[in-house]
Amino acid sequence: MYKAIITVKLRPSILDPEGKAIEHALQSLEYTQLSGVRVGKEIELTVDAPSREEAEAAVDTACSKLLANPVMEDYTFALEEL
Amino acid sequence: MYKAIITVKLRPSILDPEGKAIEHALQSLEYTQLSGVRVGKEIELTVDAPSREEAEAAVDTACSKLLANPVMEDYTFALEEL
Repeated sequence: MYKAIITVKLRPSILDPEGKAIEHALQSLEYTQLSGVRVGKEIELTVDAPSREEAEAAVDTACSKLLANPVMEDYTFALEEL
Repeated sequence: MYKAIITVKLRPSILDPEGKAIEHALQSLEYTQLSGVRVGKEIELTVDAPSREEAEAAVDTACSKLLANPVMEDYTFALEEL
Protein backbone atom coordinates (compact mmCIF):
# COMPACT_ATOMS: atom_id res chain seq x y z
CA MET A 1 0.00 0.00 0.00
CA TYR A 2 1.29 3.42 -0.90
CA LYS A 3 0.12 6.94 -0.33
CA ALA A 4 0.41 9.15 -3.40
CA ILE A 5 0.54 12.93 -3.18
CA ILE A 6 -0.20 14.37 -6.61
CA THR A 7 0.23 18.04 -7.50
CA VAL A 8 -1.61 19.32 -10.55
CA LYS A 9 -0.67 22.83 -11.69
CA LEU A 10 -1.64 24.97 -14.63
CA ARG A 11 1.24 25.31 -17.09
CA PRO A 12 3.16 28.55 -16.53
CA SER A 13 1.97 30.02 -19.85
CA ILE A 14 -1.71 29.56 -18.97
CA LEU A 15 -3.53 32.43 -17.24
CA ASP A 16 -4.68 31.51 -13.74
CA PRO A 17 -7.84 33.50 -12.91
CA GLU A 18 -8.16 31.96 -9.41
CA GLY A 19 -4.61 33.05 -8.61
CA LYS A 20 -5.29 36.53 -9.96
CA ALA A 21 -8.42 36.82 -7.81
CA ILE A 22 -6.49 35.78 -4.70
CA GLU A 23 -3.70 38.23 -5.55
CA HIS A 24 -6.22 41.02 -5.93
CA ALA A 25 -7.81 40.13 -2.57
CA LEU A 26 -4.38 40.10 -0.91
CA GLN A 27 -3.62 43.57 -2.31
CA SER A 28 -7.00 44.87 -1.08
CA LEU A 29 -6.25 43.51 2.39
CA GLU A 30 -2.89 45.32 2.23
CA TYR A 31 -0.75 42.20 2.07
CA THR A 32 1.28 43.94 -0.60
CA GLN A 33 4.37 41.79 0.03
CA LEU A 34 2.64 38.80 -1.55
CA SER A 35 2.42 38.49 -5.32
CA GLY A 36 2.64 36.05 -8.23
CA VAL A 37 -0.09 33.77 -6.91
CA ARG A 38 -0.74 30.51 -8.77
CA VAL A 39 -3.27 27.97 -7.56
CA GLY A 40 -3.05 24.24 -8.18
CA LYS A 41 -4.58 21.09 -6.75
CA GLU A 42 -3.11 18.61 -4.35
CA ILE A 43 -4.71 15.18 -4.56
CA GLU A 44 -3.94 12.57 -1.93
CA LEU A 45 -4.90 8.95 -2.48
CA THR A 46 -4.10 5.41 -1.41
CA VAL A 47 -2.71 2.96 -3.96
CA ASP A 48 -3.15 -0.76 -3.39
CA ALA A 49 -0.19 -2.13 -5.37
CA PRO A 50 2.39 -4.81 -4.53
CA SER A 51 5.44 -2.79 -5.64
CA ARG A 52 6.52 0.83 -5.99
CA GLU A 53 6.81 0.41 -9.80
CA GLU A 54 3.21 -0.77 -10.11
CA ALA A 55 1.98 1.98 -7.81
CA GLU A 56 3.86 4.57 -9.91
CA ALA A 57 2.41 3.18 -13.13
CA ALA A 58 -1.15 3.22 -11.71
CA VAL A 59 -0.88 6.81 -10.44
CA ASP A 60 0.74 8.02 -13.66
CA THR A 61 -2.05 6.54 -15.79
CA ALA A 62 -4.75 7.97 -13.54
CA CYS A 63 -3.11 11.41 -13.70
CA SER A 64 -2.80 11.48 -17.46
CA LYS A 65 -6.28 10.02 -18.12
CA LEU A 66 -8.39 11.65 -15.43
CA LEU A 67 -6.75 13.89 -12.84
CA ALA A 68 -4.88 16.35 -15.05
CA ASN A 69 -5.77 18.01 -18.33
CA PRO A 70 -2.66 17.29 -20.42
CA VAL A 71 -3.23 20.35 -22.62
CA MET A 72 -3.25 22.92 -19.83
CA GLU A 73 -1.81 21.25 -16.75
CA ASP A 74 1.37 19.58 -15.51
CA TYR A 75 1.43 17.02 -12.74
CA THR A 76 4.03 15.60 -10.40
CA PHE A 77 3.59 13.02 -7.68
CA ALA A 78 5.43 11.45 -4.77
CA LEU A 79 4.81 8.01 -3.28
CA GLU A 80 5.16 7.08 0.36
CA GLU A 81 4.98 3.51 1.62
CA LEU A 82 2.25 2.88 4.22
CA MET B 1 12.49 37.33 -1.81
CA TYR B 2 11.02 33.97 -0.97
CA LYS B 3 8.76 31.54 -2.75
CA ALA B 4 6.05 30.10 -0.53
CA ILE B 5 4.29 26.83 -1.32
CA ILE B 6 1.11 26.62 0.72
CA THR B 7 -1.03 23.50 1.02
CA VAL B 8 -4.61 23.93 2.18
CA LYS B 9 -6.48 20.73 3.00
CA LEU B 10 -9.90 19.98 4.40
CA ARG B 11 -9.63 18.63 7.94
CA PRO B 12 -9.77 14.82 8.01
CA SER B 13 -13.18 14.81 9.72
CA ILE B 14 -14.79 16.95 6.99
CA LEU B 15 -16.46 15.18 4.04
CA ASP B 16 -14.70 15.91 0.75
CA PRO B 17 -17.27 15.73 -2.07
CA GLU B 18 -14.69 16.53 -4.78
CA GLY B 19 -12.51 13.64 -3.59
CA LYS B 20 -15.52 11.33 -3.53
CA ALA B 21 -16.44 12.32 -7.09
CA ILE B 22 -12.89 11.63 -8.29
CA GLU B 23 -12.87 8.31 -6.46
CA HIS B 24 -16.14 7.33 -8.12
CA ALA B 25 -14.78 8.30 -11.53
CA LEU B 26 -11.61 6.25 -10.89
CA GLN B 27 -13.73 3.22 -9.96
CA SER B 28 -15.86 3.65 -13.12
CA LEU B 29 -12.69 3.76 -15.21
CA GLU B 30 -11.59 0.53 -13.48
CA TYR B 31 -8.71 2.06 -11.56
CA THR B 32 -9.84 0.02 -8.58
CA GLN B 33 -6.40 0.13 -6.94
CA LEU B 34 -6.86 3.81 -6.12
CA SER B 35 -9.01 4.89 -3.17
CA GLY B 36 -9.26 7.33 -0.28
CA VAL B 37 -9.05 10.42 -2.48
CA ARG B 38 -8.85 13.82 -0.76
CA VAL B 39 -8.44 17.04 -2.71
CA GLY B 40 -6.72 20.15 -1.43
CA LYS B 41 -5.24 23.31 -2.87
CA GLU B 42 -1.64 24.18 -3.50
CA ILE B 43 -1.00 27.91 -3.63
CA GLU B 44 2.35 29.23 -4.81
CA LEU B 45 3.31 32.85 -4.28
CA THR B 46 6.26 35.19 -4.02
CA VAL B 47 6.97 36.99 -0.75
CA ASP B 48 8.94 40.20 -0.77
CA ALA B 49 10.41 40.17 2.74
CA PRO B 50 13.91 40.91 4.05
CA SER B 51 14.15 37.86 6.30
CA ARG B 52 12.75 34.34 6.55
CA GLU B 53 10.97 35.21 9.84
CA GLU B 54 9.12 38.14 8.24
CA ALA B 55 8.24 36.05 5.20
CA GLU B 56 6.88 33.31 7.48
CA ALA B 57 4.83 35.80 9.48
CA ALA B 58 3.36 37.36 6.30
CA VAL B 59 2.40 34.00 4.79
CA ASP B 60 0.97 32.73 8.07
CA THR B 61 -1.25 35.80 8.46
CA ALA B 62 -2.44 35.60 4.84
CA CYS B 63 -3.26 31.90 5.28
CA SER B 64 -5.24 32.36 8.44
CA LYS B 65 -7.08 35.50 7.26
CA LEU B 66 -7.73 34.74 3.60
CA LEU B 67 -6.38 31.56 2.06
CA ALA B 68 -7.72 28.93 4.45
CA ASN B 69 -11.01 28.60 6.27
CA PRO B 70 -9.88 27.95 9.84
CA VAL B 71 -13.08 26.09 10.72
CA MET B 72 -12.82 23.46 8.00
CA GLU B 73 -9.29 23.55 6.68
CA ASP B 74 -5.70 23.07 7.80
CA TYR B 75 -2.74 24.67 6.10
CA THR B 76 0.99 24.09 5.95
CA PHE B 77 3.61 25.99 4.02
CA ALA B 78 7.25 25.83 3.01
CA LEU B 79 9.50 28.75 2.10
CA GLU B 80 12.28 28.70 -0.43
CA GLU B 81 14.75 31.55 -0.89
CA LEU B 82 14.80 32.99 -4.42
